[in-house]
Order: sequence, then C-alpha cells, then structure tokens
Amino acid sequence: MKAVGIKKSHPIDHTDSFIEFNTEEPKPGDSDLLVRIKAVSVNPVDFKVRQNAAKDKELEEPKILGWDAAGIVERVGNKVTKFKQGDEVYYAGEIDRPGCNAEFQLVNENIAGHKPKNISFEEAAAMPLTSLTAWECIFERLKIEENSGENQDILVLGGAGGVGSIAIQLLKKLTKFNVIATASRNETEAWCRNMCADVIVNHKNLEEEMKAKGYEQVDYILNFSDTDMHWDAMANLIKPQGNICSIVETKNPVDLNILKNKSVAFHWELMFTRAKFQTPDMHKQHEILERISKLLEEETIETTLNKTFKGLSPETFKEVHSLQESGKSIGKNVISF
Amino acid sequence: MKAVGIKKSHPIDHTDSFIEFNTEEPKPGDSDLLVRIKAVSVNPVDFKVRQNAAKDKELEEPKILGWDAAGIVERVGNKVTKFKQGDEVYYAGEIDRPGCNAEFQLVNENIAGHKPKNISFEEAAAMPLTSLTAWECIFERLKIEENSGENQDILVLGGAGGVGSIAIQLLKKLTKFNVIATASRNETEAWCRNMCADVIVNHKNLEEEMKAKGYEQVDYILNFSDTDMHWDAMANLIKPQGNICSIVETKNPVDLNILKNKSVAFHWELMFTRAKFQTPDMHKQHEILERISKLLEEETIETTLNKTFKGLSPETFKEVHSLQESGKSIGKNVISF
Repeated sequence: MKAVGIKKSHPIDHTDSFIEFNTEEPKPGDSDLLVRIKAVSVNPVDFKVRQNAAKDKELEEPKILGWDAAGIVERVGNKVTKFKQGDEVYYAGEIDRPGCNAEFQLVNENIAGHKPKNISFEEAAAMPLTSLTAWECIFERLKIEENSGENQDILVLGGAGGVGSIAIQLLKKLTKFNVIATASRNETEAWCRNMCADVIVNHKNLEEEMKAKGYEQVDYILNFSDTDMHWDAMANLIKPQGNICSIVETKNPVDLNILKNKSVAFHWELMFTRAKFQTPDMHKQHEILERISKLLEEETIETTLNKTFKGLSPETFKEVHSLQESGKSIGKNVISF
Repeated sequence: MKAVGIKKSHPIDHTDSFIEFNTEEPKPGDSDLLVRIKAVSVNPVDFKVRQNAAKDKELEEPKILGWDAAGIVERVGNKVTKFKQGDEVYYAGEIDRPGCNAEFQLVNENIAGHKPKNISFEEAAAMPLTSLTAWECIFERLKIEENSGENQDILVLGGAGGVGSIAIQLLKKLTKFNVIATASRNETEAWCRNMCADVIVNHKNLEEEMKAKGYEQVDYILNFSDTDMHWDAMANLIKPQGNICSIVETKNPVDLNILKNKSVAFHWELMFTRAKFQTPDMHKQHEILERISKLLEEETIETTLNKTFKGLSPETFKEVHSLQESGKSIGKNVISF
C-alpha cells in the first residue's frame, strides 16, 4: 500500500520533511478493523511527533503519522463484534500504532465509531480526535453533567482551534453553561461566534478583558491554548473550589501553590491515554464517537471542518503541517485521498 | 479575657515565642457564636503561622493562633439559628480571624458543629480541622462516593499524622477501598494499624515498598506528607485517569507534565478555603461536623487524640509546638484549659 511518512525529524520546509513510500498492507489483529482511508485531518500531535520522533538519527523504517481518519472497513479481525466489512467508520486511533496517512490502517474496534451518515468523509475526518478530547475534558475529567451549568460560567481558552470549536458546541448544546471563549483575531472571533460561544474575550489581555466583560471568576476553565502563558491568569480567574482542565503540556515547571488557597483542581486530558494504557474503560471512546455521530446526524452539532486539501502526497502534508504549525489554523484542516 | 499569642515570629525555644496577655472579650456578629474554650488542638498550620506571621517586625497587637477547638456557647449573634447558649460545640474556625488559644473565641455558626455527646472536650478538640480536611479530600475534591471503592486501592501518604489518622478511618468505615497507608517507624505503623489501614508501607522507599507488597499502581493518592519529595513517586504510582489530592504546599515549582500521559488530575485541599472566600456552600462544613459528630457518637470512628497537655499558658504551647515541629507527632496533641 502507499503511505506518506517521515524518516527523520526535519523542519517542514525541508525537501524530505515528508516522504512517500510503499509498505505491506497490515493484517488485522483479533479486535482490529482494517480501514481503507478516505480522509484524514491534522492535529497539533502530528507536527509534534514529526518534529520529535526522529531528531537524532534516521529511522530504519519510515513512520506513518496521522491520528484522525474516516474510511470504509475493508476487513475485520476474528473477535470484532461492533463493525462489519463495508461499514463507514471514523476514529482517532492510537499514538503507539502506525497512523492514518496511508491507504489502509488498523484500528481497534473499541476506539472506532460509525461515521455519521449525513456528512462526507472529509467532514467526518475532522471530528474524532477533537471530539474525544473535548468530550473527555468536559464530561469525564471535569465530571460535568449534561444539562447542568445553570448560572455557571466556563472559560474556553483557544476557542477557535480544533478542540475549542467542538468543546464550545458540546457545552452550548448539552449543558446550560454560559460559555466564554477566547480569540484574538477577527476571523477567530467570528468562528467562535459561529460555534455559538456566548462571550468572546481576547486572550492577549485575558484578565483585563474578562473584567471589562463583567467576569471576575469562572467555575471552570478549559485550556486548549498555552498552559505556561495562562498559568497565573487561570489561577486568578478560577473560582474557589473550581476546576481547570488542560491539554497543552507546559514548557517549564509551574508554581502549583498558587492554586492551593482556593482548593483548585488541575486535570490533564490526553485523548491517547485510554488506548496507550489499554484501560478497562477504553471502549468508552467507541461510545463517545457513536454519540458524536448521533449529534451530528441530528444536526445538534456541526462539523468543525474548515479547509479541505487533496491527495495522499508529501506535498499536501507539507502544506497542511505548515498551516498547523503557524498556530493560526481555524477549526480543522482535512486531506481527502 | 486571657489569651496566648505571638508578637513576633521567633524560633519555638525563644523566651518570647509565645506570650500571655489580656484582651477584650470579642462581641459576636450576626452569625457568630461566642464560645468559652475548653480544649484546643495544634496542627501544622499553627507553627507555620507562628513562623511567618511576624517575621520582619513586631506586631502592634499580639496575634492569637489556634484553629481547632471544643467549648461551650456563651452567647449567640442576632441571626444564629443552629445553636443556642449552653450548647457544646467543636470547630476549626477561620484563618483570617483570631484563633482559639484564648478563653473565648468567635466562630461563624456555619462552620461549627455540635460536639459529640459521648466524648470529652479534649477528645472532641482533636477532630474538627483534620476531619474537615480528610472529608473534603475524599468526598468533595475527589468526589468519592460512600460505599464505593470495591476492588480499588487508595494510598494515604502520611497515615499516622492528624489528617491521615482520620482519613484512614473514614475510608475504612464509609467506603470499600483497600487502604494502603505510609508510616516509617514502629510507633507510626502500629498507630496506622489501629486506625484500621489494610496495608502499611514505608514512605522512604515508596515505590519499591509498594511493589514488594504487590502494588504497581493505585486508583487514588491522598498526600498528607511531603509533596515535592513524593512527586515523582506519585506520578509513577497513580493509575491512568487517576486522581491525586494533596494538602501540603510545594517548596519548588513542579514538573506537571509527568502526570499528562496518564490524564491524571491533581487536587488541592485547604480546609480554610470555604470560610476565607465565604463560598455559598460554606455551611457544608457545619454539615460535615454534624456527620462526624454522629459517627463518633455511634462509635463508627474514634477520636485521633494521642496526647493531652494542660493549661492556657505560653509554656504549654511551646511544648506542643515543639513536638508538632519535630514532624514526629502521632495523631493529635490537645491542650485543655
């Protein structure tokens, strides 16, 4: 099968930052689906792995990136019960297995979902990683209950990014929270409004902007932006006994004590945790994707797809990684094969 | 009224580390009880405030320490509904108001409880601060439900201290968790067994000891010991998606990222948070103390009082602070007036 991957960690504008190659079509294990990929999307994890996986020396075999896909089940493993050949599926996959930037990919059925029937492969490929991340942040890490949040405020740092875009929608459609999202440009502000955020603030002067809009403190903070940069502001803006959930690793050690007087909790969310550690509740990611599928079919939420690119080729991935690395990407960028 | 307090932050063996003085009997505000103190206990917060409250220059008025008391209601404020004159009460109090090392003290009725009928003032004075802390850690910060915890493990770092002693009891009596407590001396190990811990490990070689006892990872960690010292071990010993709750501030910035791969949450608990920020749910501390009172009366749990001292005098407080500062104190030390 044809694939695009890396043999060495190069800057994105290097000739060999991505290479095209042929490799054997993988064989499904007991719980695996072999999926013919129709579309993939790119997330920050893609360029982080590209920048770091082969820093020192060239890999013996090229590494296939990509952790967001929609496609058609070509074949199933012996013990698969949730899917059959020909099913249309979407999923994020596992960080420790080959990615989806290829003609075919294996995925454990417990972390895959049926693709929503009413949208395209491209629109579906935009959703899995960010929806799983946003869902786990809101409903599992922070244990927010559906329909709760009346008279409560939640601040979403990085509202126009992939995770922010779907988090705002899930909050607005499944809870009663007042959703304050951050954006710093006209385009991102408009995007957040389109996702139904109640209030938009500029994260460049976060505390002042919040005060100017009448908010001293909020019940919850979801951080999909820069954890180090917002650390002090988050500590000031969170209510006593409040909860912060973040998906962005810190560059430096942090002063944890500034959260202590208020008895605040800090939660990490990493969508790859369940599959990485093969947790007993790994199948919940299947359930979340089925639910997201239903919400998309009912048009309760909408795809966060923004731009579509074409072709399983190094050139396309270079273009999209470049856009993603700029930090100016809005919503999701998808590549269809 | 007579009181014991500090005018300057001195080492405990300094002549004036504590002074005796007379001051006006305080007048209850609308929601206050004026309590005639019968017994108090000493917690780490006492010596931390003593060491830091007047580091640079002498205070104009002496500061009264002490945040754990049992006594009799002498008079009530205009809007008090939960207590009446003559009631026997116990409470921890507020960090921003004068403490209990005095003949009389004011306390807001929303954070006070009725003293258990079947135990002495000394036995009761040992309980409020540590019970509130342990209860908030377990049932509020970590949101553990009563009767839950079947086939789950919880690690209590610092099992023989004041908070550890009551946390172990609450876990063993109100949940189904397997409780692993740390202790490093024969006396503390015996004390933890007496509190009904299932397993005792030495926290000096925590990870090795845990492995030797058959534990790779646990579902929850309660840290009542040294946060910096145990940071790496906690990161290794916590299960994916697990929760850590700590009450001990860190000395240095910490590497928060080591909790990220597992999507772990870190919760702070400070018993003073609710009163300090006058949170709308401050009255829950009244409810917790009422429940603790009932549990003590039913003999479901027992007082963690270990040693009793006598007299509202600088000498007594010097002796008890000295013991507390040594870090070798077991259970609670109480002073009766």
